Amino acid sequence: MGAALDRLLGWLDLGGIAVFAASGALVASRKRLDPVGFVLVAAITGFGGGTVRDLLLGRTPVFWLAAPELVGLCAAVGLAGYFAAHLIESRFRALLWADAAGLALYAVVGAEIALAAGADPWAAVLLGTVTATFGGILRDVVCQELPLILRREIYATAAAAGAAGFVALRLGLPALPREAAFAAG
Amino acid sequence: MGAALDRLLGWLDLGGIAVFAASGALVASRKRLDPVGFVLVAAITGFGGGTVRDLLLGRTPVFWLAAPELVGLCAAVGLAGYFAAHLIESRFRALLWADAAGLALYAVVGAEIALAAGADPWAAVLLGTVTATFGGILRDVVCQELPLILRREIYATAAAAGAAGFVALRLGLPALPREAAFAAG
Amino acid sequence: MGAALDRLLGWLDLGGIAVFAASGALVASRKRLDPVGFVLVAAITGFGGGTVRDLLLGRTPVFWLAAPELVGLCAAVGLAGYFAAHLIESRFRALLWADAAGLALYAVVGAEIALAAGADPWAAVLLGTVTATFGGILRDVVCQELPLILRREIYATAAAAGAAGFVALRLGLPALPREAAFAAG
Repeated sequence: MGAALDRLLGWLDLGGIAVFAASGALVASRKRLDPVGFVLVAAITGFGGGTVRDLLLGRTPVFWLAAPELVGLCAAVGLAGYFAAHLIESRFRALLWADAAGLALYAVVGAEIALAAGADPWAAVLLGTVTATFGGILRDVVCQELPLILRREIYATAAAAGAAGFVALRLGLPALPREAAFAAG
Repeated sequence: MGAALDRLLGWLDLGGIAVFAASGALVASRKRLDPVGFVLVAAITGFGGGTVRDLLLGRTPVFWLAAPELVGLCAAVGLAGYFAAHLIESRFRALLWADAAGLALYAVVGAEIALAAGADPWAAVLLGTVTATFGGILRDVVCQELPLILRREIYATAAAAGAAGFVALRLGLPALPREAAFAAG
Repeated sequence: MGAALDRLLGWLDLGGIAVFAASGALVASRKRLDPVGFVLVAAITGFGGGTVRDLLLGRTPVFWLAAPELVGLCAAVGLAGYFAAHLIESRFRALLWADAAGLALYAVVGAEIALAAGADPWAAVLLGTVTATFGGILRDVVCQELPLILRREIYATAAAAGAAGFVALRLGLPALPREAAFAAG
């Protein structure tokens, strides 16, 4: 059961990195960058939130230094964005969707990792929110845009609510199998 | 005696976080953000300098992950700022005052924490300056403004001088009670 | 032999910090900052890449907290920039050269430090690239410019290629003396 949840979390993590990397490629496209710029911004967005979370917790070396497949994923998404982003009709709408999907996935993954690292429940909620929001903040800061999260606050609220719900179910209902808590979070 | 100083430092720390959070709320007000944006920018400003200091020293998990009352303080100041900031006549002047007060408090607190963590005196002065200045730098970078510290350099000089004076008195005059050194720093 | 290489790496490190600090002073000059602003931006640029590398690896306290001579070097370069930068005919061209020289030096130094810290070869290439690029990224973010690295992507490519070449020679040709690998990297 626990192994199944871990595998699911691993896939969610992968999904979160991929959609955040895609959101980075969309902003790179707005800025008309070259391929290397796409890959850099995709990597900063995809890894940013998790890197800040790991640094705050003291989990070093940070996760992607032991995960070449994640680095390859970010690079591939960045390059794909370079060749495909201009085909998307409404890039800003796509960016909003990618950001929302990434936030939802990362809030849960971040909270779970914080709990596993021994953080208090409220701190896990906070770290879930940080994991979910800082990739986008770093992306926008590096690309010289006012962070999307400050313009569309519903996202931060959603991330915090998702992380809180997950932590509450994970800890408050120990009789439930972990999978049920996870599905609800 | 030592306990009294520690308690005083605790209050100074609280004061520094509160005025920096207030300065964050003032910038959020300039940017016409929503309540969540106020809280985010207040937290980034209030915790930014101390977080960078803890990361540079390797003191992880960082301090606010063990201090729910500080997180609540930042959130409360951010929300209060949302409802009250527009009532202030000259918000830029208020920002300058909040920044100056925060710098003074944080330069001393940061230097003391660095000394306690075993840093050399000159490194403690540097870390006091970093603690005092990076909250405001992060606030301005996230809000897409040229950092105030680069426009009003007197602040950085004051922070460095305050940290240096505190460290000099703390170490150079071991015969003095710690409180006297502190009062002068 | 090893000692000679270490000494050479120490000099390269010093050179990388100096040229990055100079690039920071050049941007400070574009922004018409005061002397303290020059020193701050020079220090952020000179120490930024190596600080991010150390944080990602968990090598704390970060390197410059044990190296007063490097702090002095950054301050001196920043102040020299304040008095001399306006004498340079084409400051943007000088900035490009300083950035390119810093990237080359730092990609190799960063990769070597990552290898010494036990990083995998591909991670060492990545960390060399991060060390080489993040000083400039932080400089431009703090000074509110779109990062140079996103506008002139050849630099990131060169840094990654340099770090990869160095790591390949350092590990792939164990029969060669370390100095030869180094000279080729």
